Amino acid sequence: MTESRPVRRRGRPRGGTDSRARILGAAVDEFGEHGYEGSTVRSIAARAGVDSALVHHYFGTKADLFAEAVGIPLRPDVDVPGILAGPRDEVGARIIRYVLEAFEQPEIRRRGVMLIRTAVGSKLTTPLLAGFLSRELIGRIAKSLDVDDAEVRASLVASQIAGLLLTRYVVRLPALVAVPVDDLVDRIGPTVQRYLFG
Amino acid sequence: MTESRPVRRRGRPRGGTDSRARILGAAVDEFGEHGYEGSTVRSIAARAGVDSALVHHYFGTKADLFAEAVGIPLRPDVDVPGILAGPRDEVGARIIRYVLEAFEQPEIRRRGVMLIRTAVGSKLTTPLLAGFLSRELIGRIAKSLDVDDAEVRASLVASQIAGLLLTRYVVRLPALVAVPVDDLVDRIGPTVQRYLFG
Repeated sequence: MTESRPVRRRGRPRGGTDSRARILGAAVDEFGEHGYEGSTVRSIAARAGVDSALVHHYFGTKADLFAEAVGIPLRPDVDVPGILAGPRDEVGARIIRYVLEAFEQPEIRRRGVMLIRTAVGSKLTTPLLAGFLSRELIGRIAKSLDVDDAEVRASLVASQIAGLLLTRYVVRLPALVAVPVDDLVDRIGPTVQRYLFG
Repeated sequence: MTESRPVRRRGRPRGGTDSRARILGAAVDEFGEHGYEGSTVRSIAARAGVDSALVHHYFGTKADLFAEAVGIPLRPDVDVPGILAGPRDEVGARIIRYVLEAFEQPEIRRRGVMLIRTAVGSKLTTPLLAGFLSRELIGRIAKSLDVDDAEVRASLVASQIAGLLLTRYVVRLPALVAVPVDDLVDRIGPTVQRYLFG
């Protein structure tokens, strides 16, 4: 207990929590003004008055930073590639299982429902979440399909996922709330499968 | 022009616009406090201090009164029976076409989007719309199916419709906005068909 100076980890840039908070604030402003697609790590760094490297150091990718700034409880950009990489004839079922098993966790569900309410309820925030989902969910699924209408197919998948989350977890339609996850995967998985490959 | 008294139509109860406005106000309060299922024409009439017959006279059924009070732009209670009555192997396509052709009309779309934003954005109004849809859309579809899991099937249909409206008209995913109605009917109709009869 003779050392009272704060310990500085080797290689960590200077600035500490101040810079981190400033970057996060700049990210919220930048995403709010220019949307997800229109913002870059570089533009957020400039707004915060720091180097891009520091943003990457604290937060990783743009998707990571967005998830942190907006409080996204699910990371399609991280999880979807693995889901798409498995056996093709069960991709639909795996996508639905992934979404449902996440939302069955109380903390993810709480944040997810709040995010859906905010994003749908306000004209200002709808395009922001739409931009993130277009790029990180729909874009990633579409890229894995080698067809002309890949974006439409992936967007139809998004429509069924959005409707499922809305009716089961936000509106809470009694008949849907009562159905076990496995049963929903059996019923909705083939829809996603057909939208993607049918 | 010698007659200056207001013309009273034969058989029309007394009260006029005052009663009409009072019933509508009572309906908003009653639906807000007790939800759609928990409110009755009788309870709304009592709240407005009028006879139930007057409520029926001005507004028709409970669904009619709700549609008027909340500004519902689509009347599933009126339209769904006809959709279900046609050839069974095209029910899914007819349901999707009905919803899309309605929302392609600017005035219905404007009111519909506003209603979705309000209902999803606020914890108070979500159960109200859910109650109406459970009874007048899901309930009507379920009754037409002679199976044990009719409510689940009809709720799955509602989930795809809700997701379609949300992604095409509220979030406005670019790939979905660009697809013609006929194409969407071809792609999503079979989903509804499978949820109902698969």
